[in-house]
Amino acid sequence: MAPLNPIYPMKKILPALFLIFLTLPIHGQEKTLAEKLGYSKTDKLLIIHADDIGLAHSENVATLASMTEGMVNSTSIMMPCAWSTEVGELIQNFPHLDVGVHITLTNEWFNYKWRPVASAEKVPGLISESGFMHFDCATVSQNATPEEVETEMRAQIEAALKIGIKPTHLDSHMGCVFYGRPEYVASYLKLGQEYGIPAMITPEIVESIIKANPSLFTEFDVDNLPIITQIASASPQEYDEKGMEGYYTSLLNNLQPGITALLIHLAFDDAEMQALTLRHPYWNSPWRQADYDFFTSEKAKNLIEENNIKLVTWREIGAL
Amino acid sequence: MAPLNPIYPMKKILPALFLIFLTLPIHGQEKTLAEKLGYSKTDKLLIIHADDIGLAHSENVATLASMTEGMVNSTSIMMPCAWSTEVGELIQNFPHLDVGVHITLTNEWFNYKWRPVASAEKVPGLISESGFMHFDCATVSQNATPEEVETEMRAQIEAALKIGIKPTHLDSHMGCVFYGRPEYVASYLKLGQEYGIPAMITPEIVESIIKANPSLFTEFDVDNLPIITQIASASPQEYDEKGMEGYYTSLLNNLQPGITALLIHLAFDDAEMQALTLRHPYWNSPWRQADYDFFTSEKAKNLIEENNIKLVTWREIGAL
Repeated sequence: MAPLNPIYPMKKILPALFLIFLTLPIHGQEKTLAEKLGYSKTDKLLIIHADDIGLAHSENVATLASMTEGMVNSTSIMMPCAWSTEVGELIQNFPHLDVGVHITLTNEWFNYKWRPVASAEKVPGLISESGFMHFDCATVSQNATPEEVETEMRAQIEAALKIGIKPTHLDSHMGCVFYGRPEYVASYLKLGQEYGIPAMITPEIVESIIKANPSLFTEFDVDNLPIITQIASASPQEYDEKGMEGYYTSLLNNLQPGITALLIHLAFDDAEMQALTLRHPYWNSPWRQADYDFFTSEKAKNLIEENNIKLVTWREIGAL
Repeated sequence: MAPLNPIYPMKKILPALFLIFLTLPIHGQEKTLAEKLGYSKTDKLLIIHADDIGLAHSENVATLASMTEGMVNSTSIMMPCAWSTEVGELIQNFPHLDVGVHITLTNEWFNYKWRPVASAEKVPGLISESGFMHFDCATVSQNATPEEVETEMRAQIEAALKIGIKPTHLDSHMGCVFYGRPEYVASYLKLGQEYGIPAMITPEIVESIIKANPSLFTEFDVDNLPIITQIASASPQEYDEKGMEGYYTSLLNNLQPGITALLIHLAFDDAEMQALTLRHPYWNSPWRQADYDFFTSEKAKNLIEENNIKLVTWREIGAL
């Protein structure tokens, strides 16, 4: 499916890049993040993180249900999307929940569209000829200046605050902040510091972006940033070959020590999501229903208990 | 329900203003629009017009189905909404269908939001403190200059062209173009002329806005504008007292001569629409399902035939 190609290399690279299990402490860091949280180096800590709340009504309801009735313990919101305001209302009775800002620089769906939160005149490089955000990260990094990306990231954080969300963390939709220009990562970390919240990074990002471009990161005490141990997320190949239950069962039974952020995507396989994810064979409506089904199942709960996995949140990390 | 008040006066005034059945030819106009279309003055002509396509996926599918399988013969699109792009794809196999631009200056729903199509810096008066369009027409007319409204109307028409829609007409969401500043109407007519498509107006608009502000309309040959005879649309009172079937049955059995534009709103009463129309007791999800049910029923078809009502389209009017 030719039109989809630009997305998938990124999505394939993400797990490949980040699933390198770096459990050694970072040079100069006396305690790992796990130890700072009061755990030992050998404890298996897990953030079960639902990306993409705010994307659609179906996504909002499924994600919230997975947090209040299932095992999901963190989410992050896509502020440019039409349904993001609903999240402000839905979570107002659950102020303890982890809700970060899922920095969104792309609009990867064919028939459901959004524009940047910032004024078009301030961020022209983030806007495609169609008037919406670009379809993939590569086009973003070819077109958007670091200043534009910082402007848009700030606008998204401010928009979240405006609907009553006090973000617990920052992360990046489709990983676009981490692809392309290292200046994007500098702005992302700067905004995390400015708003007093952790911006998700991994040892791989520290090595390949921060330490490779030291002049951009002089204002940060890199070794003391809240660096998680690894990211895990189902790939198209795992979805096809193992199915979601198979993939997550294997992941939970073999979880490595340290803090793993498991990135999942939850929605109901309904008319709205089917139309929204049209012609996308992955991260689509049935994929999201399968994530929902697994993380609201007894099996997920039991696997987490049996494997002595401890759930941690971005709120706890931010409190450090 | 206090937060809703600003909308409803407009919605109540609309039918009251326009349901004055002016069947006399306008002064100086030799033939009525009906006669120009080849009908007699006594013929009962009807445009069954679905407002709001583009609003939501549910709205898009229900509206298209009502046009291909039911009695609806015209629609107009809300370009600022997240689902408007889907309409371009859905209608590509139906190039004969009437699709106009439903000029949208408000965002009246609580949890499903949109911004203007034009850059925020060009149309600040159209944007509320929340960053989205204002909730009601009164706030639009208090804040938006005529220049801003013209800029946004043009941006919406251009956005429709960009997704492959060649608009057959212009009309106005919630009637906001007709409330507030007469300059809005001058821009609306000007854009209709510029793009060579009819902009829906009624004798009431001619009398109360155009003839009351002649200096704004010097460039128009007002008597030769395509003026329909009347607008009809269910009011909350009619919905409550008669139900949709009762209201439409009575309307079709008593239709007056001339060209009536019957404005309806179709969607499925599903999870998406229920959340979208939350806390709106009217024009909400069940209201739209009732419109869909009636205008895809055999009863609607039979009533139109029995009453010798002739269906006309904006495309036919535009061809004059």
